[in-house]
Formats: sequence, C-alpha cells, structure tokens
Amino acid sequence: MHHGAEILLALFAIFVAAQVGAEIAQRLKLPGVVGEIVAGCAIGPAALGLIGSEQIASGMPLDVLAEIGVVLLLFSVGLETRLDDLKKVGRSAFLVGVLGVIVPFVLGALWAHGSGFEWTKSMFVAAAFVATSAGITARVLQELGVLTRLESRVILGAAVIDDILAMLLLGVVTSLQGDAGVNVVGLLLVLAQAVGFVAVIGWVGTRVMRKRAHWLDRPINPLSPLTIALAICLGLAYLSTEFGLAAIIGAFLAGMIASEMHQREELEHQMQPLLALLTPFFFVITGAKIDLGVFASGAALWTLLVVTVIAIVSKLIGGFLGALSLGRRGALIVGVGMVPRGEVGVVIASLGLAAGVFTGETYAVIVAMSLLTSIVTPPVLSALLKRAPDDAPPG
Amino acid sequence: MHHGAEILLALFAIFVAAQVGAEIAQRLKLPGVVGEIVAGCAIGPAALGLIGSEQIASGMPLDVLAEIGVVLLLFSVGLETRLDDLKKVGRSAFLVGVLGVIVPFVLGALWAHGSGFEWTKSMFVAAAFVATSAGITARVLQELGVLTRLESRVILGAAVIDDILAMLLLGVVTSLQGDAGVNVVGLLLVLAQAVGFVAVIGWVGTRVMRKRAHWLDRPINPLSPLTIALAICLGLAYLSTEFGLAAIIGAFLAGMIASEMHQREELEHQMQPLLALLTPFFFVITGAKIDLGVFASGAALWTLLVVTVIAIVSKLIGGFLGALSLGRRGALIVGVGMVPRGEVGVVIASLGLAAGVFTGETYAVIVAMSLLTSIVTPPVLSALLKRAPDDAPPG
Repeated sequence: MHHGAEILLALFAIFVAAQVGAEIAQRLKLPGVVGEIVAGCAIGPAALGLIGSEQIASGMPLDVLAEIGVVLLLFSVGLETRLDDLKKVGRSAFLVGVLGVIVPFVLGALWAHGSGFEWTKSMFVAAAFVATSAGITARVLQELGVLTRLESRVILGAAVIDDILAMLLLGVVTSLQGDAGVNVVGLLLVLAQAVGFVAVIGWVGTRVMRKRAHWLDRPINPLSPLTIALAICLGLAYLSTEFGLAAIIGAFLAGMIASEMHQREELEHQMQPLLALLTPFFFVITGAKIDLGVFASGAALWTLLVVTVIAIVSKLIGGFLGALSLGRRGALIVGVGMVPRGEVGVVIASLGLAAGVFTGETYAVIVAMSLLTSIVTPPVLSALLKRAPDDAPPG
Repeated sequence: MHHGAEILLALFAIFVAAQVGAEIAQRLKLPGVVGEIVAGCAIGPAALGLIGSEQIASGMPLDVLAEIGVVLLLFSVGLETRLDDLKKVGRSAFLVGVLGVIVPFVLGALWAHGSGFEWTKSMFVAAAFVATSAGITARVLQELGVLTRLESRVILGAAVIDDILAMLLLGVVTSLQGDAGVNVVGLLLVLAQAVGFVAVIGWVGTRVMRKRAHWLDRPINPLSPLTIALAICLGLAYLSTEFGLAAIIGAFLAGMIASEMHQREELEHQMQPLLALLTPFFFVITGAKIDLGVFASGAALWTLLVVTVIAIVSKLIGGFLGALSLGRRGALIVGVGMVPRGEVGVVIASLGLAAGVFTGETYAVIVAMSLLTSIVTPPVLSALLKRAPDDAPPG
C-alpha cells in the first residue's frame, strides 16, 4: 500500500520549496516567481536531487501538473484582459511580435553559422531564440497588479502574435532540414489556420459570452460559472495545440472570453486558490530543469554567456523598436517583458536534439539560455515597472 | 509543438464528462458523485474510449491527478471534523471499524475457499473484501451537508480504524503466502507504528495548531493560511503512506488539524474551487477503471453478483452491529456508509494479481466488486440520510 508515496513526496517537496523560495524572494524585494524558479533549481536533479530528472521528464505526472499550472495562470491573466483593451494596442503589439521574432532569428542564425553550423542547421538553432514564453512575464505583471497597464497589454498581445510566428518559423526550418524544400502552400495553410483560430475564438467567443453569460447560471452546481469557465479553458488549451499553437495561448483566449462574464470578479477570486496550488509546479519544475552541469566546463560557460546575451539583446531590440510609440521607457518595459523564452525554447531544443540537428552540448546551452532569460527578466521588469509612472487608464 | 495535446484532451474530456454526469444525476435527485462515476464508465476504455486504459494506469498523470483530488477531498472533510467531536464517538467508531473488518474477512475467506482456493490464498482474496474507501462516502456526506451528524462522525472515525486494520491484515496474509510463516513481532511493530502515527499527528497536531495558529499570518503571501494548510496536507498524505496507511488518512488528519485554525471558514471557502477542479478526476477515473468486459460471460457475471452481495452484506452487518448504540436507523446509515471499497480493493487486487495469488478473472471480479459497491452506496446513503431525523447537535 505504499502506492504513490514517491509522487506524494515530490509534490510536497515542490510545494514547500515554492513557498519558501517565494517568501525569501519577496522579503528581498524580488518577485516571488524568481524564488520559485531558484527553489526548483535547488531541489532539482542538478543540486539536492529531491526530485529526479526522470520525474520531470515531458509527459510525466509532475510535467503535466506544471502544464496545468501555467494553463491556469494564463487563463487568469486572460480573465484580467478585455478584448477591447487589447484591440487598442493592436498595432504596437503586432510590431513588437514581428520585430521580436525577426531580430532574434537573424542574430541567432548569424551566431550559429559563425560557430560552424551550416546555414540550414543555423536556422533551426535560431528558431530556439525566437519564441517568448508569456508565463513568466504574465506572473510578474500579475504579482505587481499592473496587468491593465498599456505596456502589459502590448506584451500580452505581442505574445500571441509571437507564438503564431514562432510556430510558422519552426515549420519552415523543420522542412528546410529535409531535401524536399519548403512547402509554401502547406505553410500558408498552417499560418491561416493559426490566425483563424485566434481570430475566431477571440472575436466570436467574446461576443457569444457577452450575450449568453446568463446560461452559466442554469446548472444546479453552485460553482457552475467556475466549472464552465474551467471547461472552456481546458477545451481551448487543447484546441490551440491542435492548431499548432502553445496550450497557454488557448488558455489566455479562454480567460479573455470569460472576462466578459458578469461573474468575472467572482471567477478571479475563485482562481486564487487554484493558482496558489498549481502554478508553483510550473515555476519550480522550470527551475529544476536547469542543468547546472553545463557550467562545469569553461568553454560551455562562455558559449552560454554569449548565447544568453544574444538572446536577451536581440529580443530587447525587437520589442523596443516595435513599441517605440509608447515612449522610450514604455518600449523598454515591453522589450524586457518579451525576453523570457521559458519552456518554448526548451521544446524547440528538444526537437532539434531528437532530429539530430545539433549535439547534446548545443541542446544544454539552449535550454540553459531559455531558463536564464526567465530568471533574469523578473527582477529587471519588476524594477522598471515600479519606477515607471502608470500611464494607462485604470482597468 | 503538439506537446501535451493528448493529455489536454483527456483532461478536457474527463472534466466535461464529470460536469455533465453530476448535472444529470442531480436533476434525477441522485448524488452528483454517482453521475461522475457513471460518466467515467461511459468515456473510459470499456465504452467510448475517450481515455485509454494506459492513460489511467497507476502512476500515470491522470492517476496522480485523481490521487491529488481524493487527497484534497479528505482534507476538506477533515476540515469539517473536530477532534473533540470525533473523540465523543470513539467507542462506536472503534466497534464499527473492528466488526466491519472481521465480518467481511470471514465471509470473504469462506466464499473464496468454497470457490476452490486453498486457505492461505482465500485469506488474500478476503483481504480485498475488507478495506472501506472513505472518499465516496465522504463526498456524499459533504454534498448533503451532514458531516457534523453523529453517524457521519462514526463513519469517518471508523474509516481511520478500518484502514489501520486492513493494512495490518494485508501484512498478515502477504506473509502467509510465503513459507516463512507470520512474523508476529514485525506485525505488532507495524501496528504500533500506524496507531502511533494517527495518535501523535491527530493529538499533538491539533494541540500545536490551537496554540500556534497565529504563526500562519506571518508570511508575506496573502494566501498563506491556505498554502501552509496545503503543505501540511501533502506532507501528512505522504507521511501516512510511509506508515503503511492510505494517503487519504494523512490528508484527513491534516484537515482535522487545520480545522483548529481561526482561519477555518476562509479555508473551507478557498477549498471549494480546488475541489471543483480536482475531485472529478478521482471519481471519473474510478468509473473509467470499471472493465465492462467482465459482464460479457454469464459465469463471471454470476460470480460478480455473488461477490458483490457478500461484500455489501458483510460490511453492512459489521457496521450495523458496531453502531447499534446509535439506534437501528443510525446503525443502518453507518453500515451503508462503510460499504464502498473503491480504490483500496483495487489496490489489493492488483497486489494479488502481481503476486500470482489469483487469476485475471478473480482480479477483474474483485475490481468490479470494489467499484460496484462505490456506485450502489451513494443513492442508498443519500435516501437514508434525507429521511432520517438529524439527531446531532449542529456544527
């Protein structure tokens, strides 16, 4: 009857580490999420080993819990975002999304080619420089209570566009690895599907919800607005993966739809315990995946440093240029907010390793870069936002 | 980037099936939990196949989610149970626990021996007749809002004793399968450990909490009473498995400790969204594990019927006799409340199959029996409780 003892111990260790890490970080005036990631690094396989590397592998229970955690987080971020507010920043968000993909891709490809990769492989490596992970930034914005600020909306809108472009880019570079050349029609179809999914769900969903929110009061279950909202969240998270997008994009759209409910405030309140239990798994496991072993060799450490600087600077430039209409400080906030690569970079790196495009060392460097960008961003973003005047109208 | 699409679809299907099933059941004046179990049966591998049998296997992500769901459920049940109230029913609960183990064990062993098993193997089969699963009954009691009734307290107290005895019994019958004979000293040690764990945690934990609840307000995190309570819940759930008990016993004790906090009402409120998201996984997956294939053969169907009747009647008699001090109707409620075997019977059956003590058919019959008792109980219990006068002081 010792059934499940190991997993229960891991759940306990992760949850407690997250609380302790967040508490220490907040007492040091850092965002709680930094503490959670560092705590994950500390209890992970590379350090204390309280959780093993096989336990946090893709598709394992802890990884699924992490996925649920970040899906719920983006849902709750969507809940604080109205479609109408997002539309107002459409042009800036689009520019940030596009430039924030082009600049890192070009600089990443140049670095990879300079390091000895042939051009087609360089472009695959560069794809891992591209995709912003909205989870980390969203959490910082939520912790500071600034999700309604102009810069926050630009970042969230740009993250959706960024994800569509990254998905497309991955399609291009993957097909470049074969001999068949790029299937332009197929790629355009993929693009049309992804854009169509976001547009239809975002636009139609919010409209239906505005008119039909009273349906949510019909079931007997007294918690039914919450359960229906969660069902929409899980459903759209799944659907968006079917359209080639990250699950968190669907969850964000679901939250945006749910924000049109008249029970919105109650929902935000009910989401708090869910986030308290589940999001720590995402951030602790993100930290636990950092392979500290990479830092053992001087050469790899140097490569990691160069790659991380390129990743940060290129995204910063892209985001900054795209958001210049918000003024210099606003553009800087947006640029910094787009820096974290988080798990998306890790996923692309895994694909590259599995496809034999690059070696284990390049993989380790890209994973470490993705996670370093996630650790570096929160304190900087938090400091910038605390000093900058709030130039957005209140929610 | 289709990473995790399959699991997201399963999460969505399970969650929606649970909502639909519970809604239909409640409109038919049945407990919602019946609808969730039947919905699980419907979408499970034996019927629609929306979730595969490999997805609900032990240790897989969905199984872990189910485990977290039932752990949180028993935590919230513990939250509504005060140690002082439980102590008042100590004698009845003890009698119910002991007789509710002896009667099913004796009748189960007689049936198994009559069916051709040798005595040592018969006793292993009989062990699967023993352990009550508190999850199903607790959910019904909670749904009806009768957790403070005398009968409810007897059932919950008896479930703790029942689990200790079942664990001990499993130790005995397992050692009987070998040639070495029973290690009496070892078993007494195991018993002492389990009793000691429950006593120390229950008694010391509640005392410390009464005196030190103000510590919970110290962290920065505004949700800290909840996060600390959840940490205690996960920690004791793990610890109780280390002491050979089910994880839900530790979770129940954690809830009982947390019920001494002055933030108890806020906690109960915050647990609602967590239960809404996670407990459906336990009940749907319990249903999905029912192998309808067993019903295809007439002989197996007959065996199943006999075994289920023995399982129900034996537990009913044991519980009824133990609780006679509550009057006939009260004793009947307690007897019915002890009937569900749920996942504990399934776990013992798996052990028996793995150890080669019995065949796949016996395994299938025991699993189906365990789950049938879980489906049959809620409507009967619900009907009995609705008609019976409430003879317990409120809250």
